Amino acid sequence: MTDLERLIAQGRGEAPADLVLRGGQVLDLVTGAMIAGDVAISGDRIAGIGESYEGREVIDVTGATLVPGFIDTHLHIESSLVTPYEFDRCVTPLGVTTAICDPHEIANVIGTEGIRWFQQASRHTLMDIRVQLSSCVPSTHMETAGARIEAADLAALMDHPSAIGLAEMMNYPGVIHRDPGVMAKLALFAGRHIDGHCPQLSGRDLNAYVAAGIRTEHEATTAGEAREKLARGLRILIREGSVSKDLAALQPVLTEVTAPYMCLCTDDRNPLDIGEEGHLDHMIRSLIARGSPPLAVYRAASLSGAEAFGLKDRGQIAPGKRADIVVLDDLVECRARLVLCAGRVADAAAFAARPAIPPVGRSSVRAPRVTAADFRVRANRGRADVIGIIEGKIITEHLHEEIAIEDGDQRPDPARDLIRITVIERHGRNGNIANGFVRGFGLAAGAIASTVCHDHHNIAVVGVSYEDMALAANRLGEIEGGFVVVRDGQILAELALPIAGLMSLSPFETVRADLERLRDAARSLGVRLKEPFLQLAFLALPVIPALKITDRGMVDVSRFEIIPG
Amino acid sequence: MTDLERLIAQGRGEAPADLVLRGGQVLDLVTGAMIAGDVAISGDRIAGIGESYEGREVIDVTGATLVPGFIDTHLHIESSLVTPYEFDRCVTPLGVTTAICDPHEIANVIGTEGIRWFQQASRHTLMDIRVQLSSCVPSTHMETAGARIEAADLAALMDHPSAIGLAEMMNYPGVIHRDPGVMAKLALFAGRHIDGHCPQLSGRDLNAYVAAGIRTEHEATTAGEAREKLARGLRILIREGSVSKDLAALQPVLTEVTAPYMCLCTDDRNPLDIGEEGHLDHMIRSLIARGSPPLAVYRAASLSGAEAFGLKDRGQIAPGKRADIVVLDDLVECRARLVLCAGRVADAAAFAARPAIPPVGRSSVRAPRVTAADFRVRANRGRADVIGIIEGKIITEHLHEEIAIEDGDQRPDPARDLIRITVIERHGRNGNIANGFVRGFGLAAGAIASTVCHDHHNIAVVGVSYEDMALAANRLGEIEGGFVVVRDGQILAELALPIAGLMSLSPFETVRADLERLRDAARSLGVRLKEPFLQLAFLALPVIPALKITDRGMVDVSRFEIIPG
Repeated sequence: MTDLERLIAQGRGEAPADLVLRGGQVLDLVTGAMIAGDVAISGDRIAGIGESYEGREVIDVTGATLVPGFIDTHLHIESSLVTPYEFDRCVTPLGVTTAICDPHEIANVIGTEGIRWFQQASRHTLMDIRVQLSSCVPSTHMETAGARIEAADLAALMDHPSAIGLAEMMNYPGVIHRDPGVMAKLALFAGRHIDGHCPQLSGRDLNAYVAAGIRTEHEATTAGEAREKLARGLRILIREGSVSKDLAALQPVLTEVTAPYMCLCTDDRNPLDIGEEGHLDHMIRSLIARGSPPLAVYRAASLSGAEAFGLKDRGQIAPGKRADIVVLDDLVECRARLVLCAGRVADAAAFAARPAIPPVGRSSVRAPRVTAADFRVRANRGRADVIGIIEGKIITEHLHEEIAIEDGDQRPDPARDLIRITVIERHGRNGNIANGFVRGFGLAAGAIASTVCHDHHNIAVVGVSYEDMALAANRLGEIEGGFVVVRDGQILAELALPIAGLMSLSPFETVRADLERLRDAARSLGVRLKEPFLQLAFLALPVIPALKITDRGMVDVSRFEIIPG
Repeated sequence: MTDLERLIAQGRGEAPADLVLRGGQVLDLVTGAMIAGDVAISGDRIAGIGESYEGREVIDVTGATLVPGFIDTHLHIESSLVTPYEFDRCVTPLGVTTAICDPHEIANVIGTEGIRWFQQASRHTLMDIRVQLSSCVPSTHMETAGARIEAADLAALMDHPSAIGLAEMMNYPGVIHRDPGVMAKLALFAGRHIDGHCPQLSGRDLNAYVAAGIRTEHEATTAGEAREKLARGLRILIREGSVSKDLAALQPVLTEVTAPYMCLCTDDRNPLDIGEEGHLDHMIRSLIARGSPPLAVYRAASLSGAEAFGLKDRGQIAPGKRADIVVLDDLVECRARLVLCAGRVADAAAFAARPAIPPVGRSSVRAPRVTAADFRVRANRGRADVIGIIEGKIITEHLHEEIAIEDGDQRPDPARDLIRITVIERHGRNGNIANGFVRGFGLAAGAIASTVCHDHHNIAVVGVSYEDMALAANRLGEIEGGFVVVRDGQILAELALPIAGLMSLSPFETVRADLERLRDAARSLGVRLKEPFLQLAFLALPVIPALKITDRGMVDVSRFEIIPG
């Protein structure tokens, strides 16, 4: 008997179902009705609902409401700082049963080997990890990445079972100006899903970008931007990451009219936030608390994501769909009592049963050793471009400040919150070092450094003391990348991320504890930002306006060019 | 410059668009907003909306509202009695720009050659004809069809550009009881679209049917049935054909909440109704008149159909989508002023420019010549099974009547509206002849006969006079199939359908005029039914409850078996 024949037979009740969830009610996301009755499961599929079923195994879910497993429609698992396995163990119990990830971070360090590693992991995780193919490695011509991925490289990866299509096409200037390499990738994925990324694009430029075949987008930060993008044919993914928090601004757009065309995503979310607030469950709670109808919110959390990405096998608790089910005591509170992934209960035993896969990207930090002198700016005019941080956003302001030239250098001035920011190439390619200014950290002493530095993941250092900056940067080479906080020649806290300088080898609980120590250490330096490391990581991302810095210099994103030194 | 590069450049306004629609407003089906501005078209795609554009050609649509082209999500083009080209010329100007057809009728007569003919026609029609692959040829084991199509035959057709998936799986007993041939077809199309057909199926049987991977269904005839099917994971196609009219019953289900998951279809609609009432435009008008919100109705007419069938390139007037556009003076009236199919204006010149393709299925009527004696019933008990017609439905009642045996025969009794119905095998296979009784025609004299006889398309004859029945049946052989009305040895009216006995070689206008003459002739015999030929055609369809007749005898559909003679 084939799986399909077993499924049909169990759906009819001719044979006991493999598993029955008894005593709950199903929130049907299509009609909005509450459906009483058993949920019968056969293998990885739902065999029947709304009826009585016998089961070889029965789980009592009396009083609970069952909803389809949540779909994170766009994220970089690397931003959780743990392996895909640890991400799975951390987030699946919160109700996330599908994660549409883009291994863009690891791909920028070690290329297609990193993508293949995610594809390999996706075969064993409890949640269904769908691996989008990174479209922009490097993300621009204004940075030195560890790898370069062209259309031909993607062609070899695009038919993996985990693949959906092309991941966020963040080189939006390359699209609208028809860069040949971008055109080749768009052509390769014609007819497949192409995910977007076009912050603040509007009008005819937005038309041109969407016309290229792009279907989904997660960079809208205002209600007006979201509405324009929806009306131009993009499905909008509401993002609530650790830095980029768009939920409050976009919540008014999410209504019963628009919900079928809006989804949820986290993009970049760190394990501290996951631990303290939650993941998509936190978004669901927040949206409902702000007044969105629960039906609209749960649609956005699953059914609409499934539809937007063509995943026709999920998004509704209905026969034939994947048995991805979240058992809730309460729709408003959204605390998962039990989570099933493709019919398997997500518990410790199931996580323990996943076959191990070896790490990749070891010893990837190959930066030059630096000294205090490397952090001088060699300025010849007093007016300086300054990156202005906007807390909770990855967009920045482009500020200009007069800064005195002393000894041929423009020194940090913590009294005015003007501190040094430096990016050091660390892929062993050219040893570039670029210096600039940033405002918004509130750093009064010492330095903090990181190899998590979107999207090229070079070393980013901010500091007041050049000596401490040098110590912090050099320490990253010794621990294979990660985060370091230094003051007065002492390492106050650190977290090693030996997988490509991006992910820990440790359990997520350990990483959380280390991050708490790092956060406390950063605060002891005067840092006021809630997420200093993530905020730092995005200061080097030149596809997000307005002013950024890479290993090649300060980048005026609106002009898409390096500011001459 | 590639098409994509031209599209992007025109979307940006760097170059004049190929065509601009100026002065109208777009109804955005995602947000519900009305969007002022030009619609720019580049080749077959929309390049931009909501902005000003220059065009090499400009069409003034001042004051009009633009909506996406309508999608008929399930129909048999054969039921229009004209070729796909004539259907295109007849229906596209009404706003239908996509027709998801199932060439099930021609396939039952000439097999895969008929499907290939539709695939060939789809390459040239203005509307986009998507050819689903017929799943049930023959539809059951209780009839003699002209062909048999197995999974292996479909495998050779499934990758044609016009293909979406498997057409309506009407053998629902074969699904839930796991018939090997049905299982092979379901396995072949696993992961692709599988369309459904399961009238009145409910409860665990419905669960089992949907669990088999079936996604869409058009046989719901009550609001309760539609709601149950929606909640079980089926997308519901509201049908309004010439016989099966479900719009009134299902309209209350179509709300802004459900519209993203409901579609429109005509299934079987004849050219008289298309001429007198319209096509999907008629459904749109009727739904709005009955109180459904226009946004919900227009979604169901296009966007939701596109989503249900995975046609991600249409359903919204937005950049990158197919330029399938209906220009309306008024959303409530829904009278198309102008229709564009993939950027081409649907006008006489465009229809004339389609390259001719030769007809198929000539000389397909190979029935035995019959005489009056062939219409006797050879009964041995007085109680007879009688098909009870329900006007406007393809389901029938299973009646029982006492009918006197005279001379070893049970003769028609027009006074009680009990008339003879006979099916004659006409594919040259076995010459089967089956006789029975039907109530509901109101026939007082003569006979009417047809080779349009779902799904096997044998000859169906109803009559009071055996001599007239024989004349009518034999005449069908002479004209290569069609419709005939006879009285007192005279042919009162006829329409030849030489393509497989199903479709005319004439323009749709001629066919309409012939049908009017046939309708008048049938009325002169006392027939009260609005659509006697279509109603007759479905009396032989044993996949629809309750009592039907095929060349093998009367069929008790609830038992799925032939009633012993």
